[in-house]
This record gives sequence, C-alpha cells and structure tokens, in this order.
Amino acid sequence: MAVRTPDPDPDGDFGFDGVPEPDANPGWLTEIELAEARRRLPMLYVEAVPVRTDGSGQVTSLGVLLRSTPLGEITRTVVSGRVRYGETIRDALFRHIENDLGPMAFPLLPPSPDPFTVAEYFPIPGVSAYSDDRQHAVSLAFVVPVTGTCEPRQDALEVTWFTPEEAASDAVWAEMEGGRGTLIRQALAHLGLLR
Amino acid sequence: MAVRTPDPDPDGDFGFDGVPEPDANPGWLTEIELAEARRRLPMLYVEAVPVRTDGSGQVTSLGVLLRSTPLGEITRTVVSGRVRYGETIRDALFRHIENDLGPMAFPLLPPSPDPFTVAEYFPIPGVSAYSDDRQHAVSLAFVVPVTGTCEPRQDALEVTWFTPEEAASDAVWAEMEGGRGTLIRQALAHLGLLR
Amino acid sequence: MAVRTPDPDPDGDFGFDGVPEPDANPGWLTEIELAEARRRLPMLYVEAVPVRTDGSGQVTSLGVLLRSTPLGEITRTVVSGRVRYGETIRDALFRHIENDLGPMAFPLLPPSPDPFTVAEYFPIPGVSAYSDDRQHAVSLAFVVPVTGTCEPRQDALEVTWFTPEEAASDAVWAEMEGGRGTLIRQALAHLGLLR
Amino acid sequence: MAVRTPDPDPDGDFGFDGVPEPDANPGWLTEIELAEARRRLPMLYVEAVPVRTDGSGQVTSLGVLLRSTPLGEITRTVVSGRVRYGETIRDALFRHIENDLGPMAFPLLPPSPDPFTVAEYFPIPGVSAYSDDRQHAVSLAFVVPVTGTCEPRQDALEVTWFTPEEAASDAVWAEMEGGRGTLIRQALAHLGLLR
Repeated sequence: MAVRTPDPDPDGDFGFDGVPEPDANPGWLTEIELAEARRRLPMLYVEAVPVRTDGSGQVTSLGVLLRSTPLGEITRTVVSGRVRYGETIRDALFRHIENDLGPMAFPLLPPSPDPFTVAEYFPIPGVSAYSDDRQHAVSLAFVVPVTGTCEPRQDALEVTWFTPEEAASDAVWAEMEGGRGTLIRQALAHLGLLR
Repeated sequence: MAVRTPDPDPDGDFGFDGVPEPDANPGWLTEIELAEARRRLPMLYVEAVPVRTDGSGQVTSLGVLLRSTPLGEITRTVVSGRVRYGETIRDALFRHIENDLGPMAFPLLPPSPDPFTVAEYFPIPGVSAYSDDRQHAVSLAFVVPVTGTCEPRQDALEVTWFTPEEAASDAVWAEMEGGRGTLIRQALAHLGLLR
Repeated sequence: MAVRTPDPDPDGDFGFDGVPEPDANPGWLTEIELAEARRRLPMLYVEAVPVRTDGSGQVTSLGVLLRSTPLGEITRTVVSGRVRYGETIRDALFRHIENDLGPMAFPLLPPSPDPFTVAEYFPIPGVSAYSDDRQHAVSLAFVVPVTGTCEPRQDALEVTWFTPEEAASDAVWAEMEGGRGTLIRQALAHLGLLR
Repeated sequence: MAVRTPDPDPDGDFGFDGVPEPDANPGWLTEIELAEARRRLPMLYVEAVPVRTDGSGQVTSLGVLLRSTPLGEITRTVVSGRVRYGETIRDALFRHIENDLGPMAFPLLPPSPDPFTVAEYFPIPGVSAYSDDRQHAVSLAFVVPVTGTCEPRQDALEVTWFTPEEAASDAVWAEMEGGRGTLIRQALAHLGLLR
C-alpha cells in the first residue's frame, strides 16, 4: 500500500466523514479560514499511541487505527488532531483520544507533559520522516495506556492491537499513513521495546 | 534539620529496623559481604516519587516518606532501594514500592524504562547534589502514580502528601535526607510543575 | 519588577525595534495577517537557553538576554521566535539564535530534536506557568552550548551570563518575562544543576 | 555472526588484550575480587555511541567499534566500560571514550546527565534485549559527538563510520555484540533518525 497522508482529523472540528462532530464550534474558525491558515503557518498537533500494559506497567500491545479514506483506501494511523486556540496540550490530547477511541477507553494520560518525540510533517515528502500533503504540521506524540474499551466513534475506524514485534514490522510500517510507521518505532524505542 | 543520609533501605533485604523482610534471601549476600562491596563499587539503586493524579493525569500531590532514624531523628525521604543481582529495574522498582508503601498502594509503573533523572550519591557531600555517608550509589529515579491506599509497612514510616508548591518549598527541601529535596524538584520539573 | 510578556520576536520577521530584519520576507505573511492568525491559532515557537560549558561538557553559565521594551522597561528573556511555514525546527532554532546572539556565537545545536520541555504560553496568566499577552504560543525549548562570541544584533539587547546558582535565584526569576524564570529552572533541572 | 558478549572492558582497568592500561590501579580491586562481585551485584556501566555532526548539529554518521575477541571472532560494539567507586558518570564516560577512541577524539559530552536509554544486560539471553555472559550490568547510554580524530588505542580495535541508514540495517544489527544493535537503533530513535 502506498504511504499517503490525508489528515485523519482535518480541522479538529470535523470527523473522517466530513460531518461536524457534536462538540464542533463552526463559528470559531471556518473551514475556509482554516484551509487558508494551513498554507501559511505550521499547525500544532498532538498524537497518541494507545497501549495496553500488564500489571507491572510493561506494554503488551499497541493500538493502531484502521480507517478508509474518502477514496476508499484502507490505511493505518494513530490518534491525531489539532490543538485549538486556548486549549492546553493535555486537554487536546484527552479530546482527540475520546474522539477516536470513544468515551469508554479510560486513558491514563502521562503525568509528564513532555512528548516522547516531536514529529514534523511537511507537505513535500522527504524533508523529514513524516509528510502530510495538506499542511505543515508539528506533532507532539505521546504513549497513552488505555484501561477500558476502545470503540471508535467514526464508522470507518477500527482499532487493531499489535504486539511490539508486530508493530515494528515492515508490513505495519508500510501501511501507516504519512510516515507514522516511524512514529510507532519511535514509541517502541521510548518504551524499551524496539529490537 | 541537618541533611544527613543513612540509607533508608540498607541492603535491599532488611527494613529500616534491621529485621529481615519476609522476602529476604540472607544466603545470597551477607551483611558483611554487602558492607564490603559498598566500599569498593558503586551500588545501583532505584527511587520512586509516588504521586496522586486527577482524571486528566495531572499530578495533584506528591508523597514523601517520613521516618525516624536509628538515632531518633525525623527525616523525609522517597521510596528507595537497591537493585539485586539478576533483577530487572522494573521488578526492583515494584518491590521497593510495595515494601515502602504496602501491598494496597496499586502503583502504575511508567511504561517507559527511562528514569526522569539519574541521581549520583557520594559518601562525601559536595561532589554532587546528593550524598550518602555509607556508599557511592547511583539511583534511577521515577515518578509513580499510586491509585490505592499507602500503608507503609515499617513502623517508623509515614507518607505525607504535599501539593506541588509545598513539595518545592525550602522547608521540605531542608528536611529531605541526602539531598533528596533536589530530587523532588527534579521530579516537579519533569512534571512541568516547578515554578 | 512585574512579570509581563511582550513577545521578544513579534512575528519572526521583525526584531525588537520593529525594523524588518535582513532576511525578512514581508510578502510571505503580512503583519495584519499574522496578527489575525495569532487570535485564532496556537503559534509554534522555539526557544533556546544559551550555555557555556567546560572541557567535560558541564555547564558553567547560562546566558540570559536583557532588553528594553517599547515602554522602556528592562526585562530578561531567552532566545525565542516563531517557526515559519515549511521551516524545520532545527532551522528555526539556528535562525533565531543567530538573530539574537549574532553570527559569531557558534552554537552547538543538540543532535537530538527533542526539547527539554514544552512551554505553553497563554494570553491569560495563570493557565500555566507561562503567559504572553499577545497570543497562545507553544514553545519547544532547548539548551544550546555556544562556543563563540555573543554580540546581540539588536541595539536594545545584551547577554548576561549567570552561574547556575544565580540563574535559579528568585531575583532572576522575577525579572524574566512571561514566566521564563520557570523555563530557566526547567533547563537547570534538565542539566542536573538545580538545587 | 553469532551475537556474543564478552565484556569489551572487563574491569575498567584492563584493555581488550588483558594488558593493564597505563591508568590502571591494580591495588584498588583485584581481578579476583571483581570477578566475585560480578556474580553477586549488578555492575554499573556507561556506554557511548560516537557520532559526527554537520554544522546544524544534525548527525551524519555513527561510529561503531570493530574488534577481534580473544577467540579470534570479529564483532562490533560501542564505547563501553565500568563506573568506578567514587567516579562520576561524566568522568567515567570521558575516561572510556578516551580509552577507546584515543586522546585526539575531542568528544563533546552532552550538557545533560540523562542517558538516552538505560540498557540492562543479563547473563542469560532473553531477559531483555541485551546480554553479557559474564555479568549483570546496567548501562547508561549516551550519544557523544566527536570533533577530532579517532585512533583506538587498542590494537584490535577500529572505528567504522556508518550513515544512519547503514547503522539501522539488519546486517550491522547482527554483528553487534550483546544486543547492542538495539542500542544503536535506540540511539537513532533518540536522534530522530530512525525510519
């Protein structure tokens, strides 16, 4: 599968299907204004790799989102979305996890605000490991244990759980959009689980 | 109060009162052998700052251990203990948290094995921020959310919960043994809570 | 001195005195457009704490910028500026260090792209440790050793070198704008130099 | 090549060929005593991945040591050695870099004392990613830019410089002793260079 990078959360207000989410605030920044800003400014994003842990805190599996693009392609991605004006990183992280994994995921947000890595997405592939054809985005990426049930609210979305070995594989790497296979490997390195 | 640094967990096998703990393995390394090793080799330690978090993962309070030394002094410290031969850092961390906070603390060990800081304790004060008159110890320090009830198993031990502001105060700093007031401030910096 | 927070690098294209810098690209985003964006989107910043090190890499002093505000106040700050559209974080960091410290500072940018902390500046003080009355900015902060001569290019700017003890003092803390006294202490914690 | 793990710096006092180094202090801890300690206590190590950087601080190549074991095998490793009693981690790091890369390597030790990872070596393979058949060692690992000429002082030793892509390859991974291919990949992840 080709690695392509439509934004899985185009504007932070609209879901994968373009329908406004219940908590959207359309008056705050219209789609046109946002599209304009995207061509002029780097956009601040948060991303989360959901994980399951055992009793000792060791990660046993990583969650990857499966979704179909508007063009009907199937790609894999992580929890991802824009930070709004006036919103803290922690709040943005919580909001996007709930959006993508549902209200019963019960995430344990990390006590430290420091991301495990900063991913730079450029519109032109090759500048960095990450690309996004719609914008220049800079993402603060976190590993987030979830203790509940993940029920993606978007129809097109599913969560697949991989062992660390599977998540690091070339097969999964190739299916992740926008270079996020590298983000998964960065997460595994951070967890001491990369081989 | 003078800052002094008796080891709060002298050999990993004996509690504060010198009585072997139930899980001790006296044949493995005698007190005399360990005392000898302490004068020849740096000892590997783990330390934990227990914290309480709110629903969004933000730390609301930090736990500090209060204990009386064999000389009757009252000092403050953190969860601290030696890594045994063949033991993983994660297992050592879990063991010492259970030793110091009891079996109902329900700690959430961090998914990443990386400490928030490495503290170097030298027998002679002034070499670093940390000192321990009995040994050269190098400690990997972690912040560990606890979700249950902390009931220190050692008679002399109590847990006091401080707000981030209180924990950073000069008063608490001065009462911590071996320079661990600095360790608390390092933890607060890691948590984005130092002012 | 009151802690206030005019942006030391208002738009990434203009210096402290409002005169376009030589490398400015006025057609790229006008002042009006940028001012508009600032009220709608979080702005991505980089910040750098310049340091001097000894032969073993240990930090001996930290550089803090002294400047006069348009209102004639004297405040302290760090190297700080916006990330432009299409610019890597590393390039933005290099550009702002050269802008603020001159072309002979010879900075040694860190090999890792991970900041020592992420600082969230909000227009309303109190949301976090950091504030900026003109915008919501999220800053990736780095410690950067400099090996040459720092000659700030802006007339109003000077570099003061502090020992770690001085830099952590309440006096310096109170003079830093926008809560950056906390950023300095975060840097010291990262360096293992906070007491 | 089989991955095996003789210690490249058996006791911190002896080189690869077993001949005491000039700065050895044989009276401090005899080989027998050290061998005894190795079977009873975890040993504290430091390790360094030497790198070359370009003008912007970006890593362009990683140095890997090539050496022949006493059995005549050729293996790859990194700078590695024990922390002595009373020695700071920074001093141990500097000493072992000089031992392995020569006095003209001119390393730029990182200003922060925090390792990019903590590697746990166990005598029995499989407990973690790392193994060392002679001991239980816990290693604090650092990335260290070198600016001079690397001339390994030990006859059997050479430095090979790899691009990030080469260093991450399965071929190099398989030649590294004790699982240090994983350490190289951890270093690449820390540097934002893992793909």
